[in-house]
Amino acid sequence: MPSIHAYAAPSEAAPLARTVIERRDLGLHDVLIDIAFAGICHSDIHTVRGDWGPQQYPLAPGHEIAGVVAAVGAEVTKHGVGDRVGVGCMVNSCGECPSCVRGEEQFCADGAVFTYGSTDRDGTVTQGGYSEKVVVTESFVVRIPDAIPLDAAAPLLCAGITTYSPLRRWKVGPGTRVAVVGLGGLGHMGVQFAHALGAEVTVLSQTLNKKDDGLRLGADHYRATGDPATFKELRGSFDVILNTVSAVVDLRAYLGLLDVGGAMVCVGAPGEPLSLGVMSLIGGNKTLAGSNIGGIRETQEMLDFCAEHGILPGIEVIPASAINDAYERVLASDVRYRFVIDASTFAA
Amino acid sequence: MPSIHAYAAPSEAAPLARTVIERRDLGLHDVLIDIAFAGICHSDIHTVRGDWGPQQYPLAPGHEIAGVVAAVGAEVTKHGVGDRVGVGCMVNSCGECPSCVRGEEQFCADGAVFTYGSTDRDGTVTQGGYSEKVVVTESFVVRIPDAIPLDAAAPLLCAGITTYSPLRRWKVGPGTRVAVVGLGGLGHMGVQFAHALGAEVTVLSQTLNKKDDGLRLGADHYRATGDPATFKELRGSFDVILNTVSAVVDLRAYLGLLDVGGAMVCVGAPGEPLSLGVMSLIGGNKTLAGSNIGGIRETQEMLDFCAEHGILPGIEVIPASAINDAYERVLASDVRYRFVIDASTFAA
Repeated sequence: MPSIHAYAAPSEAAPLARTVIERRDLGLHDVLIDIAFAGICHSDIHTVRGDWGPQQYPLAPGHEIAGVVAAVGAEVTKHGVGDRVGVGCMVNSCGECPSCVRGEEQFCADGAVFTYGSTDRDGTVTQGGYSEKVVVTESFVVRIPDAIPLDAAAPLLCAGITTYSPLRRWKVGPGTRVAVVGLGGLGHMGVQFAHALGAEVTVLSQTLNKKDDGLRLGADHYRATGDPATFKELRGSFDVILNTVSAVVDLRAYLGLLDVGGAMVCVGAPGEPLSLGVMSLIGGNKTLAGSNIGGIRETQEMLDFCAEHGILPGIEVIPASAINDAYERVLASDVRYRFVIDASTFAA
Repeated sequence: MPSIHAYAAPSEAAPLARTVIERRDLGLHDVLIDIAFAGICHSDIHTVRGDWGPQQYPLAPGHEIAGVVAAVGAEVTKHGVGDRVGVGCMVNSCGECPSCVRGEEQFCADGAVFTYGSTDRDGTVTQGGYSEKVVVTESFVVRIPDAIPLDAAAPLLCAGITTYSPLRRWKVGPGTRVAVVGLGGLGHMGVQFAHALGAEVTVLSQTLNKKDDGLRLGADHYRATGDPATFKELRGSFDVILNTVSAVVDLRAYLGLLDVGGAMVCVGAPGEPLSLGVMSLIGGNKTLAGSNIGGIRETQEMLDFCAEHGILPGIEVIPASAINDAYERVLASDVRYRFVIDASTFAA
């Protein structure tokens, strides 16, 4: 396969720049995707900058990929040329361990292959979606329903599944009182999902700056965590708290917002450990949990759910040349709510 | 009602001593119990010594009470004179809030009335089971099955329910891989319950000193947490960890022992907060939870379960005069596994 254009980080310190990368030849079970859009996830920035460990460079990030099938391997049955498809955080796994069989490939006992910066099962290092094309084994490619535009589909592949999966796992439904902490790329999806599942949704955000957005997305209430009265007045008010913020939080205060038997689920982790008074959990049979993206089957279910309920992320489409500026804006929380790169600009 | 003999702490600094206390006259829904045995719980020591806040003295502790019904109020239907009965950590609650209706009276919205040192609904301060008799509203009195001797029944009312409830809540059953951390008053009950529920049980104790006991109680494996190899070799091995130890633990190490989706449940809290790296939870969709005793309905269920499965605590019966020595031995973990006071010695 000829080389293709991509945007990659040349090192952990340098800005991303146009480059060319290789994709493998189409295998029997592979799908070649013409990428249309790639979302920018905060993880992309952490990874290319080496925050989560050393990387091989150049590294093209991107694990929110939406496009159209351009070719399929001889034994592919799940997808055909012209299909609208997506790829999320993973591109391979062993397929046989208990986690894979259960449909939680992200916890593959052999190690899931992540979409970029990960050693694939053939020994090569994966390159992500900031590129014109990608080759992925068919079982890690999901269908994008017609109701979802390709640009809006991209962020669903990470931000969508990351918030959908814990809400389902913690059985959010009609009557569940859900708080979503943070109204960013993840939080604004969590609000929509929780609302569509029938929950009573409260956004807990530092300020009331995005209150109008929050209510428009389906929140019933919107409260500022910067106001100490919030933690007093909402004490014991929630069954589930979905914490989408990676900052250090006062666990005692947040766990105090849970009703008896409630659960706080974290989908982002701060760099430093939190201080946990265990009595905050024992006092009301409470639970603190973590949730890591979601499996392929559940990702498809999430996309179908979005199509059925008209759920879409808020996006700002940019050309590849704007990636580095966009990174700065992501770090400053200055985006409502996800940057999506127009893949036709990778070559230009 | 005449005054009765009891053993009480005269102040937070003084040893417990014989005294007399009052019990209320029998109300319409009350049961008068001739106490036969009262267990000594670590909480008794913390409470009388003021570790958990200031108390009114003299304070008679004791919330593991087994005895025989001596009289019943005019409208009592649940118990009759001569019945073998028990009283645990609670003696009253509102009965109407969602927690009470759900059978989790310990989380009563109005505040559960605990068995000692708690303000009862009539405004008096409760006195515990280190005494000859107690008057309790019938709905907080449970039946002790004939198969369970009264001395052995006492510790079930706190140590038993505290470990039974979380194992049920986390759906421990055949095939569940359970680790019980600590083989003390709580842990030695947890091992027996988990084994009887069909789980594969591993004791994690500081040393191998009590290994023979652990295996006899039903553990399949017994490993020393003092040996670093334990944490390496058992990585990802458990579905549920029941932590019965109130000491500060290395959460990262223990959470690493959980398999994907596993839960660590704490029933005791150290005085200082723990350090929690949230990635330890996110990495495998893991859960850290607290569990606080159990409701009255579940306490009855636990007693019936013990009778059915021949589960009994290990006890050392002592006279009231030995209480202060027993406290020192509890603090030194020098008891297998629970002291039980012979209530006939309170008056002597």
